[in-house]
Amino acid sequence: MAKPHTQTCPIAAFLNVFGDAWTLMIIREAFYGATRFTEFQRNTGAARNLLSDRLAMLVSNGVLERQNVGEQGTRYAYRLTDKGQSLVPVLVAMMQWSNAHLYDKDHAPVELIDRQYLRPLPTMQPTNGDGNILGWADILAKPGPGANSKALARIRDSRHGTP
Amino acid sequence: MAKPHTQTCPIAAFLNVFGDAWTLMIIREAFYGATRFTEFQRNTGAARNLLSDRLAMLVSNGVLERQNVGEQGTRYAYRLTDKGQSLVPVLVAMMQWSNAHLYDKDHAPVELIDRQYLRPLPTMQPTNGDGNILGWADILAKPGPGANSKALARIRDSRHGTP
Repeated sequence: MAKPHTQTCPIAAFLNVFGDAWTLMIIREAFYGATRFTEFQRNTGAARNLLSDRLAMLVSNGVLERQNVGEQGTRYAYRLTDKGQSLVPVLVAMMQWSNAHLYDKDHAPVELIDRQYLRPLPTMQPTNGDGNILGWADILAKPGPGANSKALARIRDSRHGTP
Repeated sequence: MAKPHTQTCPIAAFLNVFGDAWTLMIIREAFYGATRFTEFQRNTGAARNLLSDRLAMLVSNGVLERQNVGEQGTRYAYRLTDKGQSLVPVLVAMMQWSNAHLYDKDHAPVELIDRQYLRPLPTMQPTNGDGNILGWADILAKPGPGANSKALARIRDSRHGTP
């Protein structure tokens, strides 16, 4: 993996775990139900050593858990932890943006539907506490309790920072 | 950039544009209001040649637009297109997951609030058409009109594919 970002920023922190082109392919497969090394390999096309690195990284970050499911000898299964399953909104947002903006109209390769009614999921949007949809102009960044001086300065100088 | 993914999959297509650790840092800065090369450079810490590559890639993908704003000579400003602004749900989902899972409780560096009431944004979740929140178990992947034979087979074999 490349040198990690050191900025105190939730997007930088996210990218330190997921910011390469393979990690989220592995997460996609875990959501689709893959558990075995060979399934991840076949369904992503990742090279063995790269896949091995990324699976170990995701286990050490608590996104996947590794269990020995071998009845004779060692056979590992990788499954999403609760932390990993909490990535659903990230994956849904990515799929919806990509279907809308990277494929021509009516050429989306996959659509998400709800299991109960089999209807397409509405495009996920950020809302306020009253359920009203917010665009970027309606959203401000506010320093959190963990902001350091650099993060404070960056937010203060931003068009979208709290005054 | 690494060799692009060739799978017919919206997550693979997304990662071909954003799947490295710098591209989304640049998008973050564009959302915070940066427009100039030097601002992107200062606020991300990216090397000049890398930043130059990624900005050109984002312009060629229609996520940013480049305008000459020089009064004497050439000075470029980079701004999000409508396609780029549509990334809001992706960035919000990333920030919320990262704040919840990569920082200790009460150590989030940045929080998102709505401009009108200055209240924290609720965690964005996928919903069905009736507004009910869906977890991954409630969501199925269905082949879209652009699915090829490989994508069809992958979805059919998935625990989360339409039967």
